[in-house]
Parts: sequence; C-alpha cells; structure tokens
Amino acid sequence: MDVKVNGPDEAPRASGRTVDGPTNPMVTPLLTDLYQFTMAYAYWKAGKNQERAVFDLYFRKSPFGGEYTVFAGLEECIKFIANFRLSEDEISFIRQSLPGSNENDFFDYLRGLDCSEVEVYAVPEGTVVFPKVPLMRIDGPIAVVQLLETPLLNLVNYASLVATNAARHRFVSGKSKLLLEFGLRRAQGPDGAIGASKYCYMGGFDATSNVAAGKLFGIPIRGTHSHAFVSSFMSLDEIVEKSLGSSDGSTNCEDFVSLVQRWLSKIQWSNSLGGTFGETNQSELAAFTSYALAFPNSFLALVDTYDVIRSGIPNFCAVALALNDLGYKAVGIRLDSGDLAYLSCEARKFFCHVEKEFGVLGFGKMNITASNDLNEETIDALNKQGHEVDAFGIGTYLVTCYSQAALGCVFKLVEINNQPRIKLSEDVSKVSIPCKKRCYRLYGKEGYPLVDIMTGENEPSPKVGERILCRHPFNESKRAYVVPQKVEELLKCYWPGSSDKTREELPSLKDTRHRCINQLEQMRPDHMRRLNPTPYKVSVSTKLYDFIHFLWLNEAPVGELQ
Amino acid sequence: MDVKVNGPDEAPRASGRTVDGPTNPMVTPLLTDLYQFTMAYAYWKAGKNQERAVFDLYFRKSPFGGEYTVFAGLEECIKFIANFRLSEDEISFIRQSLPGSNENDFFDYLRGLDCSEVEVYAVPEGTVVFPKVPLMRIDGPIAVVQLLETPLLNLVNYASLVATNAARHRFVSGKSKLLLEFGLRRAQGPDGAIGASKYCYMGGFDATSNVAAGKLFGIPIRGTHSHAFVSSFMSLDEIVEKSLGSSDGSTNCEDFVSLVQRWLSKIQWSNSLGGTFGETNQSELAAFTSYALAFPNSFLALVDTYDVIRSGIPNFCAVALALNDLGYKAVGIRLDSGDLAYLSCEARKFFCHVEKEFGVLGFGKMNITASNDLNEETIDALNKQGHEVDAFGIGTYLVTCYSQAALGCVFKLVEINNQPRIKLSEDVSKVSIPCKKRCYRLYGKEGYPLVDIMTGENEPSPKVGERILCRHPFNESKRAYVVPQKVEELLKCYWPGSSDKTREELPSLKDTRHRCINQLEQMRPDHMRRLNPTPYKVSVSTKLYDFIHFLWLNEAPVGELQ
Repeated sequence: MDVKVNGPDEAPRASGRTVDGPTNPMVTPLLTDLYQFTMAYAYWKAGKNQERAVFDLYFRKSPFGGEYTVFAGLEECIKFIANFRLSEDEISFIRQSLPGSNENDFFDYLRGLDCSEVEVYAVPEGTVVFPKVPLMRIDGPIAVVQLLETPLLNLVNYASLVATNAARHRFVSGKSKLLLEFGLRRAQGPDGAIGASKYCYMGGFDATSNVAAGKLFGIPIRGTHSHAFVSSFMSLDEIVEKSLGSSDGSTNCEDFVSLVQRWLSKIQWSNSLGGTFGETNQSELAAFTSYALAFPNSFLALVDTYDVIRSGIPNFCAVALALNDLGYKAVGIRLDSGDLAYLSCEARKFFCHVEKEFGVLGFGKMNITASNDLNEETIDALNKQGHEVDAFGIGTYLVTCYSQAALGCVFKLVEINNQPRIKLSEDVSKVSIPCKKRCYRLYGKEGYPLVDIMTGENEPSPKVGERILCRHPFNESKRAYVVPQKVEELLKCYWPGSSDKTREELPSLKDTRHRCINQLEQMRPDHMRRLNPTPYKVSVSTKLYDFIHFLWLNEAPVGELQ
Repeated sequence: MDVKVNGPDEAPRASGRTVDGPTNPMVTPLLTDLYQFTMAYAYWKAGKNQERAVFDLYFRKSPFGGEYTVFAGLEECIKFIANFRLSEDEISFIRQSLPGSNENDFFDYLRGLDCSEVEVYAVPEGTVVFPKVPLMRIDGPIAVVQLLETPLLNLVNYASLVATNAARHRFVSGKSKLLLEFGLRRAQGPDGAIGASKYCYMGGFDATSNVAAGKLFGIPIRGTHSHAFVSSFMSLDEIVEKSLGSSDGSTNCEDFVSLVQRWLSKIQWSNSLGGTFGETNQSELAAFTSYALAFPNSFLALVDTYDVIRSGIPNFCAVALALNDLGYKAVGIRLDSGDLAYLSCEARKFFCHVEKEFGVLGFGKMNITASNDLNEETIDALNKQGHEVDAFGIGTYLVTCYSQAALGCVFKLVEINNQPRIKLSEDVSKVSIPCKKRCYRLYGKEGYPLVDIMTGENEPSPKVGERILCRHPFNESKRAYVVPQKVEELLKCYWPGSSDKTREELPSLKDTRHRCINQLEQMRPDHMRRLNPTPYKVSVSTKLYDFIHFLWLNEAPVGELQ
C-alpha cells in the first residue's frame, strides 16, 4: 500500500495556516499526468520553472442540455494545494519514471516544491456558474501550477457535474419532496460514490444511503431493508421473541405477531379494503413484523417483493396498525418496481381507506418512497401522470451522470511573465480568453443575475447604476448595455500564496449547500427550465474584447487559398 | 480526516492468511448502505443473523450493446473481505446512526464481526463473462454477507464496466496499436481515475498518463507535453542553455538552436517539402527545441497548438533532424485536434519525404499519436477512412464509460438455511436463479467456448465427451444438446472462510491482464463484433430448470381477471 494520508494531525504546509488534507488520501501530487512532470523538468532545464504564469480553469458548455452548472470541488482543491508536497518516496518514483537521465538538482527542486508561491482565486463553492467564466484562477510559478492542473480538473469536473445533476433532479422533483441519494453500489468506484454523496447533498439532496459519506461529511443517512431481507424469512413461526413494549413504556404486548395477524384479518374483512387481495405472502409478513419489532419507531417497509397491491400494502398496513395500537407511528412504504405512478396512487387510496375505516388519524399521509432507476425524465413523466410519491431514492442515473458522464473543464494558460496568451482553435468555442482577468456578475432591477462580465485585471470594476457595454467575446454583433443594480465580484482569494491577501474561509458543507440552494432559487426561471432554456449571457468588457481580437490576429497564421 | 488505512503492515484478519487492505483506504465496512446495518440489527434481534445464506453477484446484460463483459474488481473485493472489521469509532458512528434505541449487545456483536465464516467463490479476474452467471458466490452468516453487498457491488460494477470498455477499444483499434489511457482529468473522482488506469490496463491498454496509478500498480506511464508548454514560450531567444552532447557522448553541439534553425531552412528550401508552409510559429519552435534539450532521447512533440501542417510538423522535423545529427532518434508527434485521418496521412507523407530527401533511415516510421475525444466510434470511423495513427490516447469516453456509465450488477439471495430462494419479477429478465450453484464453461471442437451452464451444487459435473442438455433458464423451448470437448469450472475458492478449502492466490495485475487478453482472443469472433454480435448462450441443467419452475409456481400469486 502506497498511499499518503494527510490527516488533521499533520502540520500545515504553506502560508502558516492549517488546512486538512484531501478527503481521499489517494489525492497526492502524483495524482497527475506524467507530462506535468516531464514539462516541469523541461521548464527547469530551460530555467523557466519560476516564470509566473496565470491559468484559468473553466468549462465550455453546461451539462445535460442545460444552461447552468453548479461549481463544486473547491474545498478539496484547496485542501490539496495547502498540503502539496512530494515525499521522498514519490520523488524517487518520479526519478525512475522520467525518460532519459535527468540532472540530480531537479529532484532537489522537487523536494522543496510547495504551493507557497501559488495564488488561487475562485468562485465560491456552490455558486451557479456559466461557460467560459473562470471558476478558478491559478497564478504562480509555471512548473508547479502545471503540476496542479490534472488533480484540480479531476477534483472539479466530477464534483461540479454531479452537483449540477443533483440540482436538476431537485428542480424536476419540486421543493417539497425528500430526495435520497442511493448510488453507492453503481457509482464509478469508491469515491465516485463518496463524492456523489457529498455533492448531491450540496446540490440539494436531503440524505444519502452511504454510511461512510454520512460519517465523513455529516450528511443525514437513510435506509431500511432490501428484498433479500423479505426473502430471507419463510413464515411467522420464525419469530421467536414476539413481545413489544408500547411507545410510552406503559404496557407490553406479549404477542405482537398475533396482533399483526388480527389486524390483517380486520383489513381483509373490511368493506372498503377487503376483496382487493386474498392470502398475503407470509414470508413478507414475517419480515415486516420482524423489522417492526427491531425498529418500532421507524417502520418503513419495501412492499414490492411479491405483489404490491395483493400482498405488500395489506401486510404493511397490518403491521403499521399493530404498531399504532402500541403508540408507534409507522413511517411508510418503499416501491422499487412497477408502475410507480399507479402503485403510489393505489397505495395512497388504501392508506386513506384505512384511516377512515379504522379511525387512525394521519394514516392516509403515510410516506411513500419510490426508487426504481429514477432520473430526471422518469420523475418528469411521473409528475405528468400524477403520483403520490413523497420521497425519491435515486441511484445510478444520478451518481454516474448517465445522460452525460463527464464535464469538460479545461485549464488554460492566459498569461506568462505578464504577457497575455491565447490558445487558438479552428473551433471558435475552443479559443481561450487571454489575460489575467476579473469577473463580475451584474444583477438587474428584479434581483436576477443578468450577465457575467470579464475584464482585464486592472480595469475599473463595473459600478451600480453606471451603464456598461457587455460584449460577446467572439461575436462582434452580440453586445448589450447594462445598468447593474448590484455588482458581485465572482473570484475570491482562497489561497493567497506569498501575498498578504486575506484568505476566504472554507465554509461547512451545510453552508455551501445553503448557498447553492439560494443561488439556484435566485436565477431567472427561464434559464433553469429543462427544455430549451434561455442561455445566460457571458461577456467581456470592450477593452478586453479589443485585446482578444488584436492577439488573435497576431497569432493566427494567414492562409493561402490554392 | 476519518479514513482507516489498511496497510501491508497490518495484521491479517481472517483464516490466518495475510492479505493487504483495499487500494483505497476509504474502502471500509462503512462504505455500505445504511440499510445493511438496519437489517443486520433486525436479523440480530430476530436471532437470524447467523443463519447461513448464499448470495450470487451477477449482471443481467452486457454493456455497450455488446455480448460480453470482462470481470474485474475481484482482487479489491478479497482485500476488503480479508480485512473486514469495524473499528470502535465506526461502531459508535453506527450506534448514533441507527434509528431508535438499540440493544447494547448488538454492538458487541458488531465488534466481533469479520469474514472468517464467509466463503467466497468467484470467476477469476480478467475472465470474459456473461449475463446471469454468478461472478461471485458469497456464502456465510446472512447479516455479515449483506454488509458486504454494497461494497462488493461498488468494487465490481465500475471495474468490470471500464475493463470491458477498454477491451472494446482494443478490439476496434487492433492488436498493433499502442493504447494509452489519458482519462485522469475527466474521470469520476480520484479513484474513478485510479481504477480506470488499473482496469483499462487489465482490459488491454498499454499504458496510462496517471503517475499515481503507475506507482500503485506498476502500470507503464506515458506523457510528454501540453499546449500550455508550447504557449509558454515566446521565441528562441528564451533558450539560454543551448548546448547538447551527442548520444554517444563523443561530441558536443554548442548551439543546438542554430542547428535546428539550419534544418528548418533546409526543409523549407527542399523541393519535395518546401512550399507547403511559410514562416513557422517561433514559440512552438522554441518549445520543441527546449523539450528536445531536456529529453533528447524521447522527443515527442504536440504539433497542433498553431497549425499542424504549416507549423507543427515542419518544426518537429527540424528538431528531430537536429537530434538525428547528434545520434538521437526522435519518437514522434501527437495530434490533439482536427481531422486526425487527414492530418496523420499528411504527417506520414511529410516524414517519408524527409526520409528520402535527407536520407534519414526510419524517419518515415515516426510514431504518430492521436488523442482528441476518441472513442470506439471515432476509431472505427478513422479505420474506415484510412489513417496513419500508431497510438491512441483515450480519455473521457473510455474512463467515464460515456456511452453507458454504469453496469447493473446485483446481489441476490439464492438460498438460506439450505432452502433455495427465488426473487420474482414481472420482468422475466429480473427473475433470479435460485440455489447454491456450480457453473461450467463448455468448449466445442474448435476450441471456442460454446455455452455456460449452471447446475445445482450437488449435481454431477458435465464430462468431456458426454452429451448434456443445456436449457435456457426461463424459456422452455430454448434448449440444446452439447458434447463438450473441454469443461471448465468457473467458480473458484478465493476466500475459504472457516472451511479447509484451498484459497486461490490473487495473481499479479500483469498476469490478470494476460489472462484477460487470452480470454478475449479465444472467443468466437461473432460474439465479439461491434454490430449485432451473436449472443453467447447461458443455460441451466434440466434438474435446475425443473426446480426453478417448481419454485416459481410456488411463489407467484395466482391472479384473478376481473
């Protein structure tokens, strides 16, 4: 085993501040592409390694056919940067991995390497962000900043993708539903799962099934039982310990199993409920009864192992009514297959009948959780059909971001030695925006964000009430005047390096989640809708626009038609 | 930081054998769904926790529209099982996470829990596998086996998915191409990336860019430089240290920069090469020259930062020819954008012209690597167009398994207390195959695998030369006689628990890769093709068939049409 653990007990590495290491101890400086080290050597050989470079980390297109993205992963990036240092063991591995024979002094250089000269500005985690605007701006000696490229992209890409996916699932489900992330078994590896739990919570989910994520991040965890639990029982005879004390401790029911059976036959013989089912499955009844004996305060049953309508729901109600006799309130059911719209409506009807027939107040409001291969589309379809689901358990499609499994964040050089750099491409959307920049979000009268604007570092910032021309970076004819009612600077200092700037504190996950939910709510609704959303405008100042096009002409070769 | 590290220095946990912990220290017994713990408590409360249960881990459909899957992830599963034990810290977290107040003795039970009573049979890692056949069969006390469910699924699902994806990329690329995994920056989290590197190598890739994966698993690593490296140079004046000794150390070139410039003008003025380009980009030339000075033995240049034909290739050739003067052999170029078929052919032509014009033997065979958002389809399209690419660098689509981001392995109870169990479903493909089973692969005359067959545990095994009826598990009319020329038992003992069976050793990654490549090669080609592959047959013995249908009728409720 070869993994370095950066625990909270380790010493801080840079700028005299203590920052814990990354959550996953496998996130080390070696979690990078080999070419970052070959380049580091080439820079060092050329005496260029200390040249000051500025890189922007940004994406070109929002995922899932939408017009927004939730920025996530910053905390892990800063934890990584704060603890960036190569161990002897890592250095000797690099030595044996670089091609050819390399000068020894380079490895001394690596030995001293940390991020104390690197400055990181970033949009706060949980912010709603848009294409082309830097999410992070990394400024420092070129060799070390390039070593950071791959791990930062790795830490931001999936985090932002899955947080955005969670936000989209929240949007389609509505505010009132409970959203549970159930993706651990299908996620792309252990921290595909742990990351999913963290960032789905950030994007608006309420809880996860993942115990490890609950422990690491303080996320609420949820879970009851599976089909195997139901199948593992054969009959009620298996239940040996049958007694259950009442909720308030005042009485004791010696034979809870018989109480359940009495309720089942009452349901069977009732006018409004009987006739819809005959004999219910006895393994299932035994499993539900056993589960209730173990968790009388939180009885939630998976009702689709045999037949939801003819077995699961009547069995559940019998156990729930028996619990009710002893002062316990059952939580509800989970549906994991079949026609969820139909079954949830039938279940609700049944619960309401039970409430009426037996006078059990609130029984009709029993929680219904649904959890079979759900995604945005199926939830949207359920909404259109009408359903009675209170909580969605979402796994595979959520955590693997099935409809788009990757976000394409890139990391581009925009300045070196104070010289702006542009990366051209035949595909205009791939041309990078040069210069060390500042970025602002301008808000309109109604309180909605109107446009993001990038300016050169030393341009005056846009002012409230002052008209400013916002220009599309590449399209001459797309431009608009804006008189902002509020101006928000987007990039804040999260790692000051050797400068004396104040470092933004890393907020708690709960606070970041809160920010994210607020951010999503304050967007103009037409940017957020699932079908044909209005693009949010991203612009540059006139000065920056002119400079981009000056550089572009300078760099682009002039073709010759033949 | 809350992560338990199972290093090689820790004591073995079960069966007196030492097995290292999982590669990712975040893989702990808490990396499971909460419901596994609530069920464990309910089993324990009901006195059922020690009941002996058998679970099968299998999938229902091969991914990517194909008819085969590569089984991967077993080594990590066994490492997890071998070290399965809850720490005090983990137990106290479970205590606070379970709903209601739970009996103290349960936590003592958890304290003593390990996998010493669990038996694991599995198909060897790297085997080509098919739907419905168990990849793993876990036999043990029901409570502990269910705790294993989620982590085992997590460790197998993505591993098998990405290994299969790698195998498919190898298949379409052909045996002779060098395949490089470049997915770290776009993978789903840090070990989405590390896992991808491991399992792509297993599935037939040659190397990765991921340094950490190289160190952890001994996978060859590759990488040279990025666009940023090229953009970071402004002109040749930046190169201060210009001398380069010859390959054999016999001479020293004082001004390698001038040598490069002389070659560039020779190329420009040559009859066969000149005229296709004018002034090449000087930042690029400076970057290439610098890189060659750092790595004269392994010069490979990214040639598409400005213009492949008019700048990148002539610049590369100038540096490569200068290196050649000093006895070094350049490696080649990388193309990362544009029309890869066209550009690779043009590059090859240019190299061949250089070889001829300047008499540099072998220059025409210069390596061409391509790496821009490649996947099975684009490689297939390149093959159809004709190209001169020698190596493919594949990232996003490979590691995120973009065309199908999840494999749906499930974990189903097939027996408890020696009683076979079946899980029914309205969808026949979701009905589980009951009983503790044995599984065989039967080979035909031509040496190809013909069919997999499952039997009850105590049935006699199929014999070479003896006719056996293989039946579709659910479709009465689908059956065939087979006279196997070779019979291979698929499930082997990887964790004997308290039994005295011999444990299969975990092979090295290289050996598993070797097995995988052999397995893929020995399949009948029509099962492997990309479009409309022939399904491989998976069957059961007549005895098992009869038993399945007896149980099915027993369990299924009889409907009433109204």
